[in-house]
Parts: sequence; C-alpha cells; structure tokens
Amino acid sequence: MSVNLPLPRADDLLPIAGLQLRAVSAGIRKSNRLDMLVVQFGPTTTMAGVFTQNAFCAAPVLLCRQHLASAPLAWLVNTGCANAGTGEQGRFDALQSCQWLAESLGLQPEQVLPFSTGVILEHLPMQKMQAGIQKATQALQGQAGTAGSTWLEAAQAIMTTDTQPKAASRRIQLKGQTISLTGISKGAGMIRPNMATMLGFVATDLGLEQAHLQALMAKATDLSFNAITVDGDTSTNDSFVCAATGASGLRLTPQDTDWPVFEQAFIDLCQELAQAIVRDGEGATKFITIHVQCAKSSHEARQVAYAIGHSPLVKTAFFASDPNLGRILAAIGYSGVPGLDVSAIELRLNGLLVAQAGGRAASYTEEAGKAAMAESEITVGIDLHRGSHQATVWTCDFSHDYVSINADYRS
Amino acid sequence: MSVNLPLPRADDLLPIAGLQLRAVSAGIRKSNRLDMLVVQFGPTTTMAGVFTQNAFCAAPVLLCRQHLASAPLAWLVNTGCANAGTGEQGRFDALQSCQWLAESLGLQPEQVLPFSTGVILEHLPMQKMQAGIQKATQALQGQAGTAGSTWLEAAQAIMTTDTQPKAASRRIQLKGQTISLTGISKGAGMIRPNMATMLGFVATDLGLEQAHLQALMAKATDLSFNAITVDGDTSTNDSFVCAATGASGLRLTPQDTDWPVFEQAFIDLCQELAQAIVRDGEGATKFITIHVQCAKSSHEARQVAYAIGHSPLVKTAFFASDPNLGRILAAIGYSGVPGLDVSAIELRLNGLLVAQAGGRAASYTEEAGKAAMAESEITVGIDLHRGSHQATVWTCDFSHDYVSINADYRS
Repeated sequence: MSVNLPLPRADDLLPIAGLQLRAVSAGIRKSNRLDMLVVQFGPTTTMAGVFTQNAFCAAPVLLCRQHLASAPLAWLVNTGCANAGTGEQGRFDALQSCQWLAESLGLQPEQVLPFSTGVILEHLPMQKMQAGIQKATQALQGQAGTAGSTWLEAAQAIMTTDTQPKAASRRIQLKGQTISLTGISKGAGMIRPNMATMLGFVATDLGLEQAHLQALMAKATDLSFNAITVDGDTSTNDSFVCAATGASGLRLTPQDTDWPVFEQAFIDLCQELAQAIVRDGEGATKFITIHVQCAKSSHEARQVAYAIGHSPLVKTAFFASDPNLGRILAAIGYSGVPGLDVSAIELRLNGLLVAQAGGRAASYTEEAGKAAMAESEITVGIDLHRGSHQATVWTCDFSHDYVSINADYRS
Repeated sequence: MSVNLPLPRADDLLPIAGLQLRAVSAGIRKSNRLDMLVVQFGPTTTMAGVFTQNAFCAAPVLLCRQHLASAPLAWLVNTGCANAGTGEQGRFDALQSCQWLAESLGLQPEQVLPFSTGVILEHLPMQKMQAGIQKATQALQGQAGTAGSTWLEAAQAIMTTDTQPKAASRRIQLKGQTISLTGISKGAGMIRPNMATMLGFVATDLGLEQAHLQALMAKATDLSFNAITVDGDTSTNDSFVCAATGASGLRLTPQDTDWPVFEQAFIDLCQELAQAIVRDGEGATKFITIHVQCAKSSHEARQVAYAIGHSPLVKTAFFASDPNLGRILAAIGYSGVPGLDVSAIELRLNGLLVAQAGGRAASYTEEAGKAAMAESEITVGIDLHRGSHQATVWTCDFSHDYVSINADYRS
C-alpha cells in the first residue's frame, strides 16, 4: 500500500547537461531488475553531501565523507546490499568498487562517491559488483548524451522496498536563462533521517561554488529529508548528495538577486523527493503532515512533532481512521518539552478544532472527527501558544502491511 | 497473543493484613465485568507513590500527587475511562469521586488516592461512578476480613486490554516473623513508563516509615516498571503506589540488618509485575530481555537498550523470527551515545555471538541465528567495552495483532 502521487512520467524529468547516467542490472540480490546506477559528471561539476549520523554508518558513507574533499566526478550506487556492519572488509570492498569505476572512467578512486542500500550485516558480492560496473561503463562510453527517460531508470535502479520510483524536476529562469534541476530518492522503511534520507540525489546544470552548494543543502535538508519519519529508525546508509554541473554556462552565488529563486526551487524539489518517501512508507495508507506552531524554539516544535510522528498508538489510530485523539495529546505530553502548559494547547485535524483548555473542545463532535480521520491526507495542527517558532514533519500511518513487509523483508 | 506465564492462582496470592479489597462491576464502559476496585487501609498504614512524567497527566494523577501528603487510607481505581485530557471538569470529577468514597468510609477526601485507566479525552460517567462506589463500600462494610482470592479479583478489576490479570506475592522471614507482600499491575499498550507503569499496586503488612517506603519505591521502580517498554508511548495515567499496613506488628528501617532481605523481595515482586505487563504486551509473541553491559554510565546503557527496544524494525524481525540482526546494530548506532566505537561492540543472542569488530562474527551462522530467534524468550546481550555500567530493559515484539488491537481499541 502507499499514498503515492501518480508515477513520475519520463517526459517530466528534465535531462541535466553535464552528466551521464547509466542504470544496469547487476544481479546483486535479485536478477533481472535494475540495481546499479553509475553517474559520470563533467569537469566543472561541484558536489556537496550530507550523511547519516548513525554511529554504525556503512562503509560507503565513510568513503563518501572522505572522497567529497577530492572533487568527485562520479557516483556509484548499488541496491540489494547495504555494505553496513561489515567492518574492515566492508571498507575494502567499497574502495575496491570505487577503484574499478575510476579506472574505467579515467578518474582517481577518491573521485568516486559510493552508495549502497539493502540488507545490513552482509558483504558486497564483489564479482557481481565488478561485472555490473563494467556493464555500466561500457554503456556510458557509447552513450552520446543523457535522455530524460534515463532519470526514471536511475530512480528505478535505486529502489529497495519502494513500490514506485521517486523523481522530480524543476525548471526555472535565472538571469534570463533556463536552468534545470532533477532529483531522485529512495526509501520506504528505516526512515528517520538524521542528516539525509536513505538515498537522495539532485543535479543541476547551474554552476555553483562547492561551499555555497553545501550551505544550501544543509538548509534544504533540514526542511525536507530531515523532516520525515516512517518508523523512527535512522539508517546506517542515509546519504543525500547534490551535483552542480555548470554545463549551462551560468554561475550563481548567494549574492545574486536571483539566488532566492534558485533556493526556493531547490528546497521545493527536496521536499517533493522527501515527501515521496513518506507517501511510499512501508504499508502507508495515509500521508500525515504534522505542523507545530507558536513554540518557544524550532527544536521544541520538532520534538512535539516527532513524538506524535513516532507514536505507534497515534499511527495505528490513523490507520484505523479512528479519532482516538487523546493519543496525540499523550504524545505531546511525553515529548519532553519543559514547563509545557497543557491548558494552552490547541489541537486541530484538517482545521477541525479537537482539543483546547486541556480537554476536548466543546464544538468537537465524534462525527466530525471521524470524517477528518477518513481522509487520506491529514494535517495535524498544534498550537502551543508559548512562542513564535514552528516546524513541520511528514509521516505516514502504521498498518498491518508495515509488519508484514518488515517481518518478511529478507525472505 | 501474549507470552504470559501461567495465570496466577488465587491460592498463591497472599492476603495482606490491615487492608480490605472490594472489586465490583460498575458498568463504566462495558457491563458485567469487574471495572472498579476500592481498597481500605487500617490507620497505621504508610503509602508512597510514583507517577507519570507526561505533561498531559490525567486528573487522578494530579490528585494522587496532592493527596499522598495527607496520609491516605484508601484507593479508588476505575477502568474504562482514563479521565485524561478532560481539563477542569476532569479534576472536579476525580475530586467528587474521592469525596463520595471518603464519606462512606469516614475519611477526608484528601485521604483517597484515585486512579483511572482507559480511553483518553472522555469524561468520567459520574452516575456510574457513584453507584459503583456505593456498591463497593456496602460490601466492604459487611466484609469481615480479606481472602486471598480477592487479590485475583482486584487484579481482574483493573484490566483494560490485558489478556490476563497480573498479580504476585512474596513471603519472607524478617526477625523471625513472617511478612507478606502482594502486588497487582495492569497494562499492555501505551507502555513506556516514565516513573511507573499504567497501574501498579503493592501492599505489605510490614510497618515502614513513609520516607523509607518512598525511597525504596524509587529504587525498585527504576529496576522494574521504569525498565519496560511495549510501544514507547508514555501514558497519561501511569501510577505505581505501595502501602505498608504495619498490621504484622513488625516495623523495619533501612538500618536493620534484615532490610536487604525485604528490599530484594520488594524489587523481585516489582520486576515480576512489570515483566508481566511486557509478557502481555499488545500482540506480543516474544519476551525480550535487552542487557547492555560495559557502558560508561547506566544512562547510556539504558539509551542503547531503549533504542533497540523501541525500534519497530527490530521488533518486527523478532516477530518474524528473522535474524535480520543488522537492525540491532543500526539501533545501537543511532541511540545517541557520544563517541561510540562500533568496532568494540559485541552482540549476542541468547549467548550466541552475532557481531564483533564492527561486523558479523566469523563463527556466526544464519542457522544458529534462526534457532536463537525462534525462541519465545530471547536475551539480547550487548557489550559496549567502554565502561563498567549496565542496564536491563524488557520488551516484546511487534506483530500484526499490535496493529489490530490498537486500530480497533475503541470500537
């Protein structure tokens, strides 16, 4: 199940000049499905990335952090095996993979960013990796440019328990010139990113200083990939990387008057990609936006939003369309906000006032609550009445299918 | 489903001199089931209690905190309605209930401790409360003593989604005299106590200073009710209260050489009652003990244990008996322990070494992992190799039935 938006159409995904994509089937875990993606970038490209804060972070994440400093010009992504919890051998395998790709593309191994996603505690099947890389680079070398359809294949090649590929584009005018942005993401479970999602990639043909790109990513990540949760489990492999190829010939800095246009388009794209992960959350039947306002700090607004977004009781009530809304109050109550005055809080469901003055609103009726809960897109609005900060978190409900999917994931 | 131990036998539950129990059917939510418990204590009784830290705590919890200072001599417990998220009206209703019981028993209203459990955001049905209190007190006045069987009825009267009553006793020798302790508890969902469980009650015929009882409770709670989790949801109504009636004629202080015997029996009893809640956790099919050792502090040991105990991915893997044990490493990794060296960590499952040196142990086999996961009682052992502190947390798995129970709870 899912609350996916319609499948992205290949034609809606804009090619990005200055890069070449190649998705292949390497048979890493299952055969006859795209499970490896190689992206090669032109020499003017700058890149920035944010990665999981999980202490048990995967070998490819360790390498990505190092390689980002070496002006990387290629991405290597595999699914089926996360290369996490694999110790020294895992780091060796990830580096070896970078080396194979670098050799084919005439790069240094440090110029390759590796990404893996899939089962933890298992080693990369290195023969399959080598053959897959060979297959992808042969195709790359024969390929003249990039086709829009290839972004859709790229999105397909990075899926694991996702039920559909996640991709989106934006086209904007900057200084009278047309600039394109295209991104893909993946993930449906083990989603509570703490820097980035499982995997997210964005590319643009704009030219950007690496430092400017990194700063923009940090801001956009906080408002997108770092504001979603499916099950509260922060992955070992979360990675979100952006590339600015500069192939459009246009360069931009935060001092340019057009910067806000680009920034907004970038954040919008990241939010669409992040929300796509929640919409495809394992077993999801509802897409839930939790908006907390009038908090003393954005930190406490997020604390309240995540307490609600992680509560299995709240999430099962959404699944059942049951307005058992005391569970939301309970979650607010244990969210850990110091000195919280519960009598000041207002709780709304798609605008319907549910609770105020520490209890049920006089105007609230069970019937109206049921109607609001029956929607497939629900906004939970909380007014703490104690400050001027706010936060938004996106999540989904908790269904039988979540249990089924995760009880059977490896089998 | 559950991993309950055999039902407590009425004969195994020791009567406690100095108190009278009365469980009645007040028809608060459903008819023809015990849903109200009244306990009256003799004048030498001392009491202590710990309560939820949830900011949205229920009206009865607010009153309990106040009334504990007034030498209370009665408990009034109802199920079916939590009287939480009920604002000013809720506090009035709780106080009114105390007043009715106090009048019948010749006490002041402040000498009654009220407890409610059930649905949040609904008001107490006051007519039914009044009729139930009348029924209970009439019976109390006609009742000569207490029968062991009545503790089982008391345990039944406080159940909500529990599949079986939870009660236990201990008999110990102190200074050559026989002392009895009996306790009951309830709860199966919204269980991640932060001071106490949904409801827990312990009584002894020993005489104790109130301050000594309170200090002992704090210690025992940390090792029992505060070390369990079903779904990570801290309730609005958690209450754990103890009474020492003194009816045995024997008084004890922490300076007595026999104190450790009493303390151990008390902690044991609390642990049995707390574990009974996890064993009966909503939808539980496995009873899981998470033991973290060699941590730098007991705080960080608990952090790691709870990260594992709250992970829906870990809990669904236990449900499936699937040794997808990388999920445990991922949870350790995001538990937030600063400067964690993952290469030093050892992970064991019922003694079987699973992971070490940041990866899978060479000796580990999938077959052995599967066998360990197939047990209904599993100990997850984690050695952080960075200090001398430890913590134990008890939890259960996450099954389809958890979703069913919580999607349908109110209907």
